[in-house]
Amino acid sequence: MSIISPLLWEVRHNRMLWLLAVVPVLFAAAKLKPEAHTLLFVLSVLSIMPLATLLSHATESVAARTGDAAGGLLNATLGNLTELVIALTALRAGEFMLVKASIAGAIVANTLFMLGASFLLGGLKHHVQQYNRTNARVQAGLLFLASVALMIPSAVSGSESATSAAFVGQLSVGLSVLLIVTYGLGMLSSLKTHKELFAAASHDSDEGEPSWSMGLALSTLAGVTLLVALVSEIFVESVQKAAETFGMTPAFVGFVVVALVGGAAEMASAFSGARKDRLDLSVGIALGSAAQIALFVAPVLVLLSYLIAPTPMDLVFWPGAVMMVLLATLTATLITNSGRSTWFVGVLALMVYAIFAMTLYLLPPQVS
Amino acid sequence: MSIISPLLWEVRHNRMLWLLAVVPVLFAAAKLKPEAHTLLFVLSVLSIMPLATLLSHATESVAARTGDAAGGLLNATLGNLTELVIALTALRAGEFMLVKASIAGAIVANTLFMLGASFLLGGLKHHVQQYNRTNARVQAGLLFLASVALMIPSAVSGSESATSAAFVGQLSVGLSVLLIVTYGLGMLSSLKTHKELFAAASHDSDEGEPSWSMGLALSTLAGVTLLVALVSEIFVESVQKAAETFGMTPAFVGFVVVALVGGAAEMASAFSGARKDRLDLSVGIALGSAAQIALFVAPVLVLLSYLIAPTPMDLVFWPGAVMMVLLATLTATLITNSGRSTWFVGVLALMVYAIFAMTLYLLPPQVS
Amino acid sequence: MSIISPLLWEVRHNRMLWLLAVVPVLFAAAKLKPEAHTLLFVLSVLSIMPLATLLSHATESVAARTGDAAGGLLNATLGNLTELVIALTALRAGEFMLVKASIAGAIVANTLFMLGASFLLGGLKHHVQQYNRTNARVQAGLLFLASVALMIPSAVSGSESATSAAFVGQLSVGLSVLLIVTYGLGMLSSLKTHKELFAAASHDSDEGEPSWSMGLALSTLAGVTLLVALVSEIFVESVQKAAETFGMTPAFVGFVVVALVGGAAEMASAFSGARKDRLDLSVGIALGSAAQIALFVAPVLVLLSYLIAPTPMDLVFWPGAVMMVLLATLTATLITNSGRSTWFVGVLALMVYAIFAMTLYLLPPQVS
Repeated sequence: MSIISPLLWEVRHNRMLWLLAVVPVLFAAAKLKPEAHTLLFVLSVLSIMPLATLLSHATESVAARTGDAAGGLLNATLGNLTELVIALTALRAGEFMLVKASIAGAIVANTLFMLGASFLLGGLKHHVQQYNRTNARVQAGLLFLASVALMIPSAVSGSESATSAAFVGQLSVGLSVLLIVTYGLGMLSSLKTHKELFAAASHDSDEGEPSWSMGLALSTLAGVTLLVALVSEIFVESVQKAAETFGMTPAFVGFVVVALVGGAAEMASAFSGARKDRLDLSVGIALGSAAQIALFVAPVLVLLSYLIAPTPMDLVFWPGAVMMVLLATLTATLITNSGRSTWFVGVLALMVYAIFAMTLYLLPPQVS
Repeated sequence: MSIISPLLWEVRHNRMLWLLAVVPVLFAAAKLKPEAHTLLFVLSVLSIMPLATLLSHATESVAARTGDAAGGLLNATLGNLTELVIALTALRAGEFMLVKASIAGAIVANTLFMLGASFLLGGLKHHVQQYNRTNARVQAGLLFLASVALMIPSAVSGSESATSAAFVGQLSVGLSVLLIVTYGLGMLSSLKTHKELFAAASHDSDEGEPSWSMGLALSTLAGVTLLVALVSEIFVESVQKAAETFGMTPAFVGFVVVALVGGAAEMASAFSGARKDRLDLSVGIALGSAAQIALFVAPVLVLLSYLIAPTPMDLVFWPGAVMMVLLATLTATLITNSGRSTWFVGVLALMVYAIFAMTLYLLPPQVS
Repeated sequence: MSIISPLLWEVRHNRMLWLLAVVPVLFAAAKLKPEAHTLLFVLSVLSIMPLATLLSHATESVAARTGDAAGGLLNATLGNLTELVIALTALRAGEFMLVKASIAGAIVANTLFMLGASFLLGGLKHHVQQYNRTNARVQAGLLFLASVALMIPSAVSGSESATSAAFVGQLSVGLSVLLIVTYGLGMLSSLKTHKELFAAASHDSDEGEPSWSMGLALSTLAGVTLLVALVSEIFVESVQKAAETFGMTPAFVGFVVVALVGGAAEMASAFSGARKDRLDLSVGIALGSAAQIALFVAPVLVLLSYLIAPTPMDLVFWPGAVMMVLLATLTATLITNSGRSTWFVGVLALMVYAIFAMTLYLLPPQVS
């Protein structure tokens, strides 16, 4: 049995991974027809989804082998790798609007769409579902903190006299450091000092899968990250032009399409957890991932922009995006407060998301 | 014993219904002195209150005879008939400011005044009162969704470049459909799939009242609805002029006076429930009615405006009204969170309402 | 044993009180070098802290001798005496910006810094701490009401056409009366009608301290209040000039420095309570004091401004301050919802405070 046979087993048993066949087609198309934006957009979306699935699987394998605390840390740090790579590509290109839209969009998609659809799908199969609300509360608390951090520079830079770029730049760097420190302390609390408060009902891990060796997991991680980076570059280049073809506003593309594509793999895990009545897993992925993007990915991008972007990026978001992040956080806080869910709770969250998506879809292009 | 004797029994035993004698006086006055706005205003207020009481009684009788699920549906759909008829009259006249003020005012009055006064009146008689907080949570969740739906078009249309009427119109229609669908799914959840979560402590229905036959209930429903429609027409015509005489701002009239008059009958039921320690009834009426206006009456009016109003009505509300609806929703969420109330919890809600009412009362007319 | 020996005992055993030696130095310096603003600022800060400690001790002694209800009333009324005296001094000087910044700053400092640091310090010593969440809920409810009262005039006066000074003045007086009435009713509820809901786990009072006689307590109260008034005058005069020397913005000084100095004594009590696992005490001091400033001190200052200030003061706050008060209230509501705390909950509150403080510190001066 070869060392890569668990990888092949995975490809055979997970139909999403069959889409890996699209990846070489995409690279060929990008070489031969660089101006076929719509085709490249569709192919890159189809390529990102299986790569994200593989990435998340490799991350989990590494995490499983390094013990709970270190594994959790790694999982948390690498879980949003797809989003991070897409955002880095856009950041290097100086496409700050797209970077910010995809950050805000990912927070909102995870908090409302992923959480809501998990509650709905789980609730259609199970009458009432319970989960550990301590974890939901802490994640919602982190998201609230991040919302505050996003509101402040937007509110202050909105007032006419205060738009001195220096002030906004300093403030963004300071806020980024605060957010990353808080995120680190939050992990210290949930993985180390107060682990027992965050424990879910115990479940056996999925059986029947051959386990991955450390070497296989790490090579997959490295190789797939590289592929995602290459695909993301094509995706970022083609998405805006393709969107026009489909009649989508840029705001809709950045906020909804990129967020849903980037989160595809995590969503698959969250939904499958909900159907198996493992709602702690779903809530953990949805809110944990949202918190990570808000408190780790976004501030890291701000700090990295000083190294790799044409000009530094700040934390000033479009007021509509700040409002959506805040409303998504409040929604998550309200619906996870009881630690109990039914299908209708999921509908409520999905409807808030639908309101946002519809507004962005209809928004006249000049505004976005 | 005649078929209408239960109706006569009701009139004899409910002093509010003695005011029915005012109805013919109003119609005579409207014919003879159409320019006596203040008189017509006072008489129409005095007429609406007993008609609303009768309407709500007839609705309950029909509901009682058609079984829980269908009855609940009917009750919910007809419960705000007075508000709907008043709003339709104003809608046909193209008085969109009055329609919107009365919608927002009814949401706020139900959420703060009706709920707060129920808690206060109940708490003055009973030391601590308990109620099923699942229902309060779901209604508060619906109200929160509606607040989001009202905020979005107001926020977006506020930005200067986006005021293309076409966009706001499309968005309003889309949001209205989303709200009505959510309201329908919410009723499916609370009346059908998760009925047991919403159950109140069981209470016997009020005794000693002769029950109404289906025929009597339906004829009363039809006849009284017609009367309410006629009275509302006089009310809507006279209210603005009369308000000036009393030194009230139009904002105060639409937001406070119309809302309290339209909700008079429901308030009587909610307060009487609270005094009898049946707080589930009071919370259900107050928040349920607010949710219905926000998620059913308001969007139906938007959709109907395409058929019966001079021009289509949108969902763009005065920013102050959106803020009040949001703050009222947050207040209701905070104070119903524990499922327990004392008189002071009622005071808190009433004070928030008093702040709103006072601000609108003092507001210089040119702003409203 | 002389009658003042308990006072001397207190001075010997509480190292903070050794700073009392600075008071005469301050008065001498103010006489000899009235233009040495930085020196006077530092000396007045050092003088206020021990005086505030003494004041709070004397108040507690009087409270302890007058029984629970009257004592609680007195404690509540005198607890923020330092803040009140500082604010009165600024009010008489017509420094409304400083008055308002110190009010909003004190609310935010108590709600976020005092509460957060109590949770953090308590949590570092005790794994998980419990407290009575009914009290936290009521105080958070009061703070929410106050936030609404602060938002309304700021929102309405922000709209261009409504800035008729008469309207804003009337509204401010009306809101002030509502807030004071609500505060009074809240004390009636928590000290009289529903006392048992607010009870903390019983603890013995600190032992080993000689108790103060009524005469000693009252004379200390009178004498120290006079000293605080004199010191505050020097503090208010020197703070703005000194701030420039330290490179602080006026907004940072009013909002952060004055608030932390004024609350020093209460913070000492709250933190020591948290370390002794008496978190009810800490939460009561932090949120109770914030509620008192918002619902009693602020409206009393508005009403008093008609008597002692050059022109009447209104309740219109800088929008950023209103936003911070609202966000602080929401934070307190979210983190006290479970009645349980760990060190990380404290970190969350402190980080929200750090975001505010950093923004004000970096804010270009012309904006504040």
